Amino acid sequence: MVKTDILIIGAGPTGLFAVFEAGLLKLKCHILDALPQPGGQLSELYPKKPIYDIPGFPEVLAGDLVDGLMEQIKQFEPGFTLGERAETIEKQEDGSFIVTSNKGKKFHAPVIAIAGGLGSFEPRKPLIEDIEFYEDKGVKYFIKNPEKFRDKRVVISGGGDSALDWSIFLANVASEVTLIHRRNEFRGALDSVEKVQELKNAGKIKMITPGEVVGLNGAEHLESVDVDIDGAHQNIKTDFFIPLFGLTPKLGPIAHWGLEIEKNAIKVNNALDYQTNIPGIFAIGDVNTYPGKLKLILCGFHEATLMCQSAYQIINPGKKYVMKYTTVSGVDGFDGTRKEAPKAVVKAIV
Amino acid sequence: MVKTDILIIGAGPTGLFAVFEAGLLKLKCHILDALPQPGGQLSELYPKKPIYDIPGFPEVLAGDLVDGLMEQIKQFEPGFTLGERAETIEKQEDGSFIVTSNKGKKFHAPVIAIAGGLGSFEPRKPLIEDIEFYEDKGVKYFIKNPEKFRDKRVVISGGGDSALDWSIFLANVASEVTLIHRRNEFRGALDSVEKVQELKNAGKIKMITPGEVVGLNGAEHLESVDVDIDGAHQNIKTDFFIPLFGLTPKLGPIAHWGLEIEKNAIKVNNALDYQTNIPGIFAIGDVNTYPGKLKLILCGFHEATLMCQSAYQIINPGKKYVMKYTTVSGVDGFDGTRKEAPKAVVKAIV
Repeated sequence: MVKTDILIIGAGPTGLFAVFEAGLLKLKCHILDALPQPGGQLSELYPKKPIYDIPGFPEVLAGDLVDGLMEQIKQFEPGFTLGERAETIEKQEDGSFIVTSNKGKKFHAPVIAIAGGLGSFEPRKPLIEDIEFYEDKGVKYFIKNPEKFRDKRVVISGGGDSALDWSIFLANVASEVTLIHRRNEFRGALDSVEKVQELKNAGKIKMITPGEVVGLNGAEHLESVDVDIDGAHQNIKTDFFIPLFGLTPKLGPIAHWGLEIEKNAIKVNNALDYQTNIPGIFAIGDVNTYPGKLKLILCGFHEATLMCQSAYQIINPGKKYVMKYTTVSGVDGFDGTRKEAPKAVVKAIV
Repeated sequence: MVKTDILIIGAGPTGLFAVFEAGLLKLKCHILDALPQPGGQLSELYPKKPIYDIPGFPEVLAGDLVDGLMEQIKQFEPGFTLGERAETIEKQEDGSFIVTSNKGKKFHAPVIAIAGGLGSFEPRKPLIEDIEFYEDKGVKYFIKNPEKFRDKRVVISGGGDSALDWSIFLANVASEVTLIHRRNEFRGALDSVEKVQELKNAGKIKMITPGEVVGLNGAEHLESVDVDIDGAHQNIKTDFFIPLFGLTPKLGPIAHWGLEIEKNAIKVNNALDYQTNIPGIFAIGDVNTYPGKLKLILCGFHEATLMCQSAYQIINPGKKYVMKYTTVSGVDGFDGTRKEAPKAVVKAIV
């Protein structure tokens, strides 16, 4: 069981920044996210796209913003459990909570901060018979560790950036990459489309367009896929089938935790600290709603900051915290590091 | 008379970022600030100090953050009136406001956003007889345009960073720089203290320590200062006297505009849009107060953003604005520029 001060559900920018603000208050955080890497949508959906409305950055690539946030919170040593979804919550007699993930991992904390963005990102699954049977037996919707595919045969399906980029990446890892799309046209960054064209010409990626995977075969593990090509069926031997048809955000099991929900978002008290109707559970960033709510990253930063003040009160009842400015007081990391502005010297000029 | 959509009082980070968010809504802004340059405290008090709690920046110098914000808002062409303080406000019959500065300049806008930080920064004035008479006649509390001092004699008073840094800067501009401080010890950045020591040794800065300017002389314009050195008086001919004894923030005339004030800050409705008790006047950033308020720059950014949505409704009554993401929709500047993410291409791979 993971024990921490604040369990943050969601590793998007809001969840990450909450670690920093909690750290200033000497509170430890653990982050749980269904995606395989931190950053939420920014890492999963648009890492190479510029954002123009982060204050102080005239332009910042989404991936670079995540890198900046990871660097900013490093000193507060957050724990991460990635690739698992928060499933159930149980309130304990002392007011704390135990959250259990879909893989059975348990997390115990007095404060829960739901920073779940638009929800947990679930892959759009193709409608192929028995596909659930082959999940974890050769069918993958996410690529967490590309080394798993070293010297294996993979079939990738899809026509967008993910399908293009993973085909390019795995062309140098897998023994064989077949990219199947039901149209001839791909939709993605120009350089990705061109790169796939090159790899196809060089014989490093096999392409089947238009084509569609319609069947999966194998006794214990996936052994081949059936592809429909203009009405004719072709059987392709493969070790892995990776359908990359995008993600849909779903509030998921959190919707059944007894929180007040309005239009797929969690209602919070914006007049004070973004707490939900269940004391001790906060909702920050795109996942919450209140009058005048804007689903903007910069608003999540503010919400995370105010939330941490109330979390401090819950964890240290009756103790008064006097806010200090980082420029004046510096930042003491949990890893023993200290950041501080150069001190003024007092020195005679003679 | 300056006409604009939103008159922003205060050119600190919150006021600057409000220009960006207003610009996304096609609203024009004009900024009025008592200091001679944009950036508020960040430029005036600690431009070279690092800030650690701006989201996405593990560390950023205050001056660099201001530069980033100025670059970010450039495309929305804000107007600036610097070195003037907002003095009076009059509500017009149509609900709009006319604000008049201490120099008589008038500004007309339907929405006022007070982003006044801790208040307008007033110089701490030394208690010297007739000093008010010599203001604008040789006594300067701020240095707006250093060229004014080219080939002139200047006397600077003070023992902190401002006194040190301006002595260094003016040593190569003025014909004569005399630095007077009532102690031998200076308090400032080590390299500034060392540089002044060097310039003193090289005969480019005259030093009088301990010493104190106690009198000012001149019929029409300042001609000399009287300096008390250990009880003895010395007369020093000079064209300018620049006392740099720090700044104190004062809410100033805004305190008498009929706004609800609590502990030197303006009460706002944090449950919606940071509007004050006077409809059409908002207060954002350190100048406002509400339950749970934290005087942090990142909170000011959020407040500015929500404020702009209500400003839009006041300026465009009944018109619905659908928020767009900058990553998706790009940013159209008032100067004709357009920023946008590279578009996905749709292209066949053959």
